[in-house]
Amino acid sequence: MKTAETECPLVGIIMGSRSDWETMRHAADMLDELGVSHEVEVVSAHRTPDKLFQYAESAEERGLELVIAGAGGAAHLPGMVAAKCVLPVLGVPVQSRALNGMDSLLSIVQMPAGIPVGTLAIGRAGAINAALLAASILGIRYPQIRQAVAAYRRSQTESVLAQPDPRRQTP
Amino acid sequence: MKTAETECPLVGIIMGSRSDWETMRHAADMLDELGVSHEVEVVSAHRTPDKLFQYAESAEERGLELVIAGAGGAAHLPGMVAAKCVLPVLGVPVQSRALNGMDSLLSIVQMPAGIPVGTLAIGRAGAINAALLAASILGIRYPQIRQAVAAYRRSQTESVLAQPDPRRQTP
Amino acid sequence: MKTAETECPLVGIIMGSRSDWETMRHAADMLDELGVSHEVEVVSAHRTPDKLFQYAESAEERGLELVIAGAGGAAHLPGMVAAKCVLPVLGVPVQSRALNGMDSLLSIVQMPAGIPVGTLAIGRAGAINAALLAASILGIRYPQIRQAVAAYRRSQTESVLAQPDPRRQTP
Amino acid sequence: MKTAETECPLVGIIMGSRSDWETMRHAADMLDELGVSHEVEVVSAHRTPDKLFQYAESAEERGLELVIAGAGGAAHLPGMVAAKCVLPVLGVPVQSRALNGMDSLLSIVQMPAGIPVGTLAIGRAGAINAALLAASILGIRYPQIRQAVAAYRRSQTESVLAQPDPRRQTP
Amino acid sequence: MKTAETECPLVGIIMGSRSDWETMRHAADMLDELGVSHEVEVVSAHRTPDKLFQYAESAEERGLELVIAGAGGAAHLPGMVAAKCVLPVLGVPVQSRALNGMDSLLSIVQMPAGIPVGTLAIGRAGAINAALLAASILGIRYPQIRQAVAAYRRSQTESVLAQPDPRRQTP
Amino acid sequence: MKTAETECPLVGIIMGSRSDWETMRHAADMLDELGVSHEVEVVSAHRTPDKLFQYAESAEERGLELVIAGAGGAAHLPGMVAAKCVLPVLGVPVQSRALNGMDSLLSIVQMPAGIPVGTLAIGRAGAINAALLAASILGIRYPQIRQAVAAYRRSQTESVLAQPDPRRQTP
Amino acid sequence: MKTAETECPLVGIIMGSRSDWETMRHAADMLDELGVSHEVEVVSAHRTPDKLFQYAESAEERGLELVIAGAGGAAHLPGMVAAKCVLPVLGVPVQSRALNGMDSLLSIVQMPAGIPVGTLAIGRAGAINAALLAASILGIRYPQIRQAVAAYRRSQTESVLAQPDPRRQTP
Amino acid sequence: MKTAETECPLVGIIMGSRSDWETMRHAADMLDELGVSHEVEVVSAHRTPDKLFQYAESAEERGLELVIAGAGGAAHLPGMVAAKCVLPVLGVPVQSRALNGMDSLLSIVQMPAGIPVGTLAIGRAGAINAALLAASILGIRYPQIRQAVAAYRRSQTESVLAQPDPRRQTP
Repeated sequence: MKTAETECPLVGIIMGSRSDWETMRHAADMLDELGVSHEVEVVSAHRTPDKLFQYAESAEERGLELVIAGAGGAAHLPGMVAAKCVLPVLGVPVQSRALNGMDSLLSIVQMPAGIPVGTLAIGRAGAINAALLAASILGIRYPQIRQAVAAYRRSQTESVLAQPDPRRQTP
Repeated sequence: MKTAETECPLVGIIMGSRSDWETMRHAADMLDELGVSHEVEVVSAHRTPDKLFQYAESAEERGLELVIAGAGGAAHLPGMVAAKCVLPVLGVPVQSRALNGMDSLLSIVQMPAGIPVGTLAIGRAGAINAALLAASILGIRYPQIRQAVAAYRRSQTESVLAQPDPRRQTP
Repeated sequence: MKTAETECPLVGIIMGSRSDWETMRHAADMLDELGVSHEVEVVSAHRTPDKLFQYAESAEERGLELVIAGAGGAAHLPGMVAAKCVLPVLGVPVQSRALNGMDSLLSIVQMPAGIPVGTLAIGRAGAINAALLAASILGIRYPQIRQAVAAYRRSQTESVLAQPDPRRQTP
Repeated sequence: MKTAETECPLVGIIMGSRSDWETMRHAADMLDELGVSHEVEVVSAHRTPDKLFQYAESAEERGLELVIAGAGGAAHLPGMVAAKCVLPVLGVPVQSRALNGMDSLLSIVQMPAGIPVGTLAIGRAGAINAALLAASILGIRYPQIRQAVAAYRRSQTESVLAQPDPRRQTP
Repeated sequence: MKTAETECPLVGIIMGSRSDWETMRHAADMLDELGVSHEVEVVSAHRTPDKLFQYAESAEERGLELVIAGAGGAAHLPGMVAAKCVLPVLGVPVQSRALNGMDSLLSIVQMPAGIPVGTLAIGRAGAINAALLAASILGIRYPQIRQAVAAYRRSQTESVLAQPDPRRQTP
Repeated sequence: MKTAETECPLVGIIMGSRSDWETMRHAADMLDELGVSHEVEVVSAHRTPDKLFQYAESAEERGLELVIAGAGGAAHLPGMVAAKCVLPVLGVPVQSRALNGMDSLLSIVQMPAGIPVGTLAIGRAGAINAALLAASILGIRYPQIRQAVAAYRRSQTESVLAQPDPRRQTP
Repeated sequence: MKTAETECPLVGIIMGSRSDWETMRHAADMLDELGVSHEVEVVSAHRTPDKLFQYAESAEERGLELVIAGAGGAAHLPGMVAAKCVLPVLGVPVQSRALNGMDSLLSIVQMPAGIPVGTLAIGRAGAINAALLAASILGIRYPQIRQAVAAYRRSQTESVLAQPDPRRQTP
Repeated sequence: MKTAETECPLVGIIMGSRSDWETMRHAADMLDELGVSHEVEVVSAHRTPDKLFQYAESAEERGLELVIAGAGGAAHLPGMVAAKCVLPVLGVPVQSRALNGMDSLLSIVQMPAGIPVGTLAIGRAGAINAALLAASILGIRYPQIRQAVAAYRRSQTESVLAQPDPRRQTP
């Protein structure tokens, strides 16, 4: 299911549950901002394992270049996608209720030798950064994406530099 | 691949890597001691995902009644087997190198609602207990296994009771 | 004390304190949904130890086939029930106030070799999964429960597959 | 089973397994040094639960004034003894293999309101301190034990004060 | 500064800061309920170290038999009181803001060999249990306190046993 | 300083200290195996910050397409390289002495929104996987690297499938 | 950018993001109270790395004697300032969202041998204490600052001593 | 007790136990290397609390300008010295046996607002850095110490820059 924004997505954003969208939407928004085509889908490693396999098996031939997968708790989605395709997979640990995402983080990052998942920070910052890293990766092949990342980074730096003294704005 | 001991295994013991055998052999030994037929196999969720799916999909029709799965680090094997079959799945967190099995434990036990894995302790004690719990579960249907568990438990209690004063045996 | 719903419960759900009911009710609700007869009781390992022993000692002869025990903090209930009967015992770590259930989890899952407790996730997800695993275990003997679990799992998968694109439903 | 040293022990030292003696012997040695009568026994909460109950139920009438209980992993022994008798119970978390005693510590210290266990440090230091705290407690009633503790404490202080400059003794 | 309730306190309750009173009041309330005389004081190890030393040095001669000390974060109060007097010291880890009391717990319980602090659970449960353990300890010398503890424990057990089925009372 | 193997490296492998080479050599070996040109250098964020900035500033114009950075403890190297260039940066948490790499992991993975580091597992597995992920990323542009990764992955799967029953090879 | 309060600041307070001001303002307020001149600035290690280097390189020649740096998550700011100048650097771990500042703390305190950061507590207490420690350090050279610290400390002690019995003021 | 090296020490190095010398000697060695006069002493907060108070009370008048305190487990030494004098206090968490120094770290760093301890890394690196930070602090007043630190830092940087390619020196 491709998003309206694109006919030919380069990045697939998947997540283990609809409730992860609150986190993962930040990845989609950042890709939009950088002009990187993408699709969004709920794919649960545990409740829809066959869909997960079909998604991962067809990702390359459907033209995806990279997958961003977000999940929480015993988060198996990023690792299992990585197990089924050779595209780069980036993992976003969604903040979990009891353990604050420490379980999500360890379930995603501690992959055994042989099947890598590039893991970002827990929660919203991780989702934003997954999009930025994806764009940076795609920039290796697509010069305009590299330029979009570089422009975003410059603008981000300027925005921080332009901030007034924090003392002035505290009421 | 069935073990020599049995033509018709009730329990499948699987593990993510050969190096997990040092832990999981304790499960096999305990099932042997309790007279529970079983098979043993290396099935890597990450390096042999298709075999994992075939194993889980065929487990019920091959006559297995229960699966014991051991894995370490980002341990996805127990949860993915549970995602693909309705047999009870027990998970053994193998002690990992850097994080002492805390990553293995959280990756196995923190499954989302809908797909359960009954998780045992980290390492050797967990492997032994996976076998004991499996036998206790099979005892619901097979009276002789229930009796074997009860006999083992009685003998274990007697053995502790018969221990001499610890002070006497310290040289 | 049996619940109104059943004359002949297969599963006993116990918890260390009434305040655990907010978590454990999800186990009862799921067993109801799957048509598995059960009873519910507060049994505190620490404040009513004799009741705990009587409960565990009589569980098998009263016809229970499995016990689900939930507790928080220094959670001794699941392990002590397991110490006193040979029925399978599933443990649910209730989320504790200060340590978010990490104490509950370790107190339940790290049982020594010899006395197993099949442990589920911290909190609500763990309670739901304890019921699903219990039904899966009882399915070994009772075909209609196996079928109920299989039907639930299929319906769960279909429900996830039928979800619309998350982007569409965000206001 | 009383130790040779005393006909009428005031303190009962119990432990969940013989392997805990390596830790708990330091408690016995310190009580010896302070002249506090005691007995030593292996009582497993999980493998000999009935003995545990008998021990706890008879402790007061047998003349014990205090119980020191050491255990590792899902350490239920101290809490269950405390649940069954009104004597003060001190708990020693034995260092566990995978989690270094963090599981033992949380299983002992995080008792719910109503049933206290006075918990000491993980491992050998905890065993020594359990004996010192026991003697300090008994000192409330037995002046000679109070004096023995005070003398030990003075001697300990003098011993530290008499240490030479650490630089001098490093070869 | 003795409390109005008693001319001759047996127990001193101290805490590192007034904000700890929200936790430690549960210790005072429980001692009141058990009829154990006590005094209450704010004594900061870090901001009033001289008062801490005077308090600890004079505790025994003022007739105190036991000290309950509560503190949070880098909680040095219980250990420093224990370092300065031979009375039994019980420590209550107050739940801290960032680390939920894990820092308080480790700062109190991990005392080196030689100076014990009997540590209770983090927060309110620990405060209640410090009072119960204190009463149990004083019960070694004062029969009426022992009886009060026993009565409290019986009543607590009866109260749990009298609870109705949790299912009935959920609206 | 380029390695002997290549005139025109695509990947820069840097590490905070020579002692990290024991870990990071596995990244270099895996890139060798996959035929990906690379250079290796010690660049300490803390002891040679100017070299770090020069390295990061010149990386893109020197033709590097991706940087793999390994560091332990307060591991700032990956994040600071990422702060100074728009190339994709992969981080390897080196196992630290006291905290087993948990400090390294959190220092690398918990980057704020805006500057991503794709983080791999602690230690040797992370180094191997950094190389595999780097190759997978470069495969987006270089078909022969994509093929090398695919071939490696197939061979890895076959190697696991060809393993004999673990029971047979235990002496 | 110097604050209005001073023409010639001795202390530079920097922070990784404007959102850290809620924490770091407590450092500024305490320096104000002690009469220590200071400046305040947002300097992001990750988003404005060049400004960070310029700040650190010019700090000594601009007359700063000490830098207080606060940051959260993968907190690199204190360590990178320390890497670029020989002034004493104090680090304040800002409480992070998912991991409560444990990531901030480890990222700041676990610096490798050679580049020190004096680290304070997580959050507000750490910010206040950074200012107090800075003043104590400057007191080595500036007697009036030493006197201000001593006066503050005396007043703090008196304020605690003057607090009424906590029992009296609880409504 | 002053060391042979100096008649007039500026820095006092203290530690809770002789066994901490193995760690703290690295602080002494580094001060020697930088030409900073110092004394070394064992001062146990728990076993010699009066000596601790005398040490802290007399430190300023004896001419000390700064105290470095190392301790492990429930490490109260740095915080209690800080409570008793207005000199800057730096704390070194000594690696503990069971919990690897996490208890030491939290006991030292999590000081409440009002009494600061500048905390360094766990173990040897922390001891070295305590000395470097002490010298950097003293450099505010003593130009030759500032120069020694600057020279050390330059030499450290040059030494890292001069290291050969790690690949060359691996046998």
